[in-house]
Amino acid sequence: MRYRLYRLLFHHDAHDERNFDLALILAIVASVLVVMLDSVPGIKLRWHTQLYIAEWLFTVLFTAEYAVRLWAVRSPRRYATSFLGLVDLMAILPTFLSLLFPASASLAVVRILRMLRIFRILKLVKYSDEAGLLIQALLRSRHKILIFVTTLLTITVIFGSLMYVIEGPEHGFESIPTGMYWAVVTMATVGYGDISPGTGLGRFLTSTLIIIGYSIIVVPTGIYTAELARTMRPARRSVRCLECGLIDHESDAWHCRTCGRSLPDPVE
Amino acid sequence: MRYRLYRLLFHHDAHDERNFDLALILAIVASVLVVMLDSVPGIKLRWHTQLYIAEWLFTVLFTAEYAVRLWAVRSPRRYATSFLGLVDLMAILPTFLSLLFPASASLAVVRILRMLRIFRILKLVKYSDEAGLLIQALLRSRHKILIFVTTLLTITVIFGSLMYVIEGPEHGFESIPTGMYWAVVTMATVGYGDISPGTGLGRFLTSTLIIIGYSIIVVPTGIYTAELARTMRPARRSVRCLECGLIDHESDAWHCRTCGRSLPDPVE
Amino acid sequence: MRYRLYRLLFHHDAHDERNFDLALILAIVASVLVVMLDSVPGIKLRWHTQLYIAEWLFTVLFTAEYAVRLWAVRSPRRYATSFLGLVDLMAILPTFLSLLFPASASLAVVRILRMLRIFRILKLVKYSDEAGLLIQALLRSRHKILIFVTTLLTITVIFGSLMYVIEGPEHGFESIPTGMYWAVVTMATVGYGDISPGTGLGRFLTSTLIIIGYSIIVVPTGIYTAELARTMRPARRSVRCLECGLIDHESDAWHCRTCGRSLPDPVE
Amino acid sequence: MRYRLYRLLFHHDAHDERNFDLALILAIVASVLVVMLDSVPGIKLRWHTQLYIAEWLFTVLFTAEYAVRLWAVRSPRRYATSFLGLVDLMAILPTFLSLLFPASASLAVVRILRMLRIFRILKLVKYSDEAGLLIQALLRSRHKILIFVTTLLTITVIFGSLMYVIEGPEHGFESIPTGMYWAVVTMATVGYGDISPGTGLGRFLTSTLIIIGYSIIVVPTGIYTAELARTMRPARRSVRCLECGLIDHESDAWHCRTCGRSLPDPVE
Repeated sequence: MRYRLYRLLFHHDAHDERNFDLALILAIVASVLVVMLDSVPGIKLRWHTQLYIAEWLFTVLFTAEYAVRLWAVRSPRRYATSFLGLVDLMAILPTFLSLLFPASASLAVVRILRMLRIFRILKLVKYSDEAGLLIQALLRSRHKILIFVTTLLTITVIFGSLMYVIEGPEHGFESIPTGMYWAVVTMATVGYGDISPGTGLGRFLTSTLIIIGYSIIVVPTGIYTAELARTMRPARRSVRCLECGLIDHESDAWHCRTCGRSLPDPVE
Repeated sequence: MRYRLYRLLFHHDAHDERNFDLALILAIVASVLVVMLDSVPGIKLRWHTQLYIAEWLFTVLFTAEYAVRLWAVRSPRRYATSFLGLVDLMAILPTFLSLLFPASASLAVVRILRMLRIFRILKLVKYSDEAGLLIQALLRSRHKILIFVTTLLTITVIFGSLMYVIEGPEHGFESIPTGMYWAVVTMATVGYGDISPGTGLGRFLTSTLIIIGYSIIVVPTGIYTAELARTMRPARRSVRCLECGLIDHESDAWHCRTCGRSLPDPVE
Repeated sequence: MRYRLYRLLFHHDAHDERNFDLALILAIVASVLVVMLDSVPGIKLRWHTQLYIAEWLFTVLFTAEYAVRLWAVRSPRRYATSFLGLVDLMAILPTFLSLLFPASASLAVVRILRMLRIFRILKLVKYSDEAGLLIQALLRSRHKILIFVTTLLTITVIFGSLMYVIEGPEHGFESIPTGMYWAVVTMATVGYGDISPGTGLGRFLTSTLIIIGYSIIVVPTGIYTAELARTMRPARRSVRCLECGLIDHESDAWHCRTCGRSLPDPVE
Repeated sequence: MRYRLYRLLFHHDAHDERNFDLALILAIVASVLVVMLDSVPGIKLRWHTQLYIAEWLFTVLFTAEYAVRLWAVRSPRRYATSFLGLVDLMAILPTFLSLLFPASASLAVVRILRMLRIFRILKLVKYSDEAGLLIQALLRSRHKILIFVTTLLTITVIFGSLMYVIEGPEHGFESIPTGMYWAVVTMATVGYGDISPGTGLGRFLTSTLIIIGYSIIVVPTGIYTAELARTMRPARRSVRCLECGLIDHESDAWHCRTCGRSLPDPVE
């Protein structure tokens, strides 16, 4: 029975395992909704008791689930110190702590991290391959992306400082970090408008920064798309040539392109 | 004659059928324009009578068209309950209802849904293939996009809550849902500026959120582009030529493109 | 000598022709700069006489150029009614008209259309191929883009009307056209913030609209990139099979894939 | 020992060379942080002495490094006039100059250019290939990008002037350059909202500009992605196999992948 529970909680293949996953997703989303609604002044005033009860219901539920998980796994310690185990603990702890200490807003909000539990379900088999593909393409682009981010950061620092000198505190550029915040907001085309240039030179510099940002925004998109397209193209097969040892061949190769020896059975 | 009308109303191939489509598009756009103009205070004051007459003209026209459609189709019931049939009904109902009830603004605005009728025409043969390609690529990317949206939602929830705690109501972050609205507006680089961070820590977090949003905006673009590029690439089939051994052929090939020998059964 | 002038003015290959192009670009940019500076109150006050003289200098220069062009071409009439001919005329007319009529601001600003003359130079040989590629990919995507724009417009109309009903004039949504303006500004992630939602429901709808806009922004990028990638891939050759008439073959085909007959010389 | 120092300062392969690079990156980032913090009024007030000491520490450190670099290289003159040499000098000069002249804000901020020194380290071997690929794709797209930028600039000039005439100074469009600043901010979807249209016609024009901007933003992304995808695709060569006639081979193939026969001379 312990093994049965273990499968139910940690696997996602059989029919009842999937039903349990669905129920858990609903519970997670509902408990996150409770935290959210509790932060809206109007709703808190009218429905406070109901939300308080719902909160404790979910806490008891998640506590029970946490206990069963601890009991069902082979090594409770390894589970408790794993990332998902810590997230599971964090989902219940704040409510209990609020009994000991007067509930501060920040403590209550930690409960929102329950949202992270949703990734437990997303470890579903059918999704992991797709996610793997996405992450693989990201990882393979990491060198290119690091160069890109360094360039971006340097531009941010330089333009943030320039605007601090040119525009100064009277137009909202109070310090270099504020200028950098403005440069990030501008380059990423967010553009709140809480800080915006007031002088002619400042506006010219802003236009320059926007055009630079506009030009290099295509770089990460291009990197990632090209990498993903390459990952998705099933154009090669890995088979070791018995003569020269070359492994990377085109998918329709019958003979090794280096030594000409016929390759092992091409039908996979 | 009933069949003739049926073809005129539901098909788009012959010359007169296309002319009818064009007239219908013009009528739809004009009727939507009437609803729009009627909502502009200045115009309503001066041209109210004319707009009122035009409105009833279009309603009578669309009612006649609806009646003819009902009469021309084989199964009036199936048409009346289809999506496009309901849209056709919704295009005329609000004007008649305004006779019974005093015309409220919301009732009048429902008439804008006439706009949806435009998709009736877009079911044209030559466009459906192209649209099919676009939607097919979207459907094939749905697993990847679901993972992406979940990640996005989680980031939104966490950053919205963080900013609610850090910035608080005095900077506009009145509740967690408001914080989430801000996070969506920020990540998608819209950046209204109606709510924007005021503290140093808040600005640092905002910069982080923007850079995260900036980094993962490339993911859906990459997914969709790569998928679309794959969809648009002429299909290939793997069959071994018995003469020269070439495996990679176009899906419509009957003969090997290298040696000319006819290929084994092309039916997969 | 007339032919010599014709080449100088309309061709871009020889050394002196290119020098003339460069001088013309400089003159165009300088004359546009004069119009711009003339609109800045501070500068106009101090440098009005100089700008006035410069303006007449450029007008005389462009008038002379226009006259020479009219004289050098074979058919002055065809040149005068061509797009570039009209642009050339528009570059000089407003200044002369300002002698007859008191110079209104709008008349003066028409001179800015001189900027369009820059495309005369961009008809350079080496650029036209590249531009052709870009425009060809755009044209080939036009059906897909039309579907996309219709969908976008429909979403704009519906969300603009919804927000007009929900938010109303007190939050800036004065009419449906204003609502549509807001929807365009939001979907394209511009987000001025001059109009922004004030109610909870309005903010929820805004988030929905942003996510929809965010999701479909990838569609045109995907379409264009995939189309461009296909245009740039030199993977096919056009040669007519002598047996069955098939023209579209892979670039390395020796035999027709339909009938197996060997194709005419594959070495281009 | 001079050669040893030279390697330590200018190469990035051996273990200790990498450790030195890491230490240098940390020193650069820390010294930039000092300049930044010094610009925040609150921090400057409380920690001024400490920041002053840290500033001089870094200046002495970088001066020593500069001196050693000058001594270690074969041609001190060539190093001193190289781009990275000038950046190295600029990193120390402002602090010394502040002793002679009373430290103005702009002089102090020049120290932020130390950030550029970080690119010295990014010349690491393993990154240069990746950066080379990115820049190569950018360079190969330069003709296309130039056409794109000219089109963009023309649209900016025309729409900026139009809005200056239509909206006028009362809505913030004080001059044509201001209008162009607004057009850049709008087309790039930054949208600060410091200047936004107030009239109906102005809003219609803005929507048009946004849709134009939205349509052509895909062009550079498409160009760059397609170019990058082409750069990343393994190169191929066209040579006819004497046995089976296959033409399309990988650039490093010695034997035909279909029949195994050795290919004609692989040197192109």
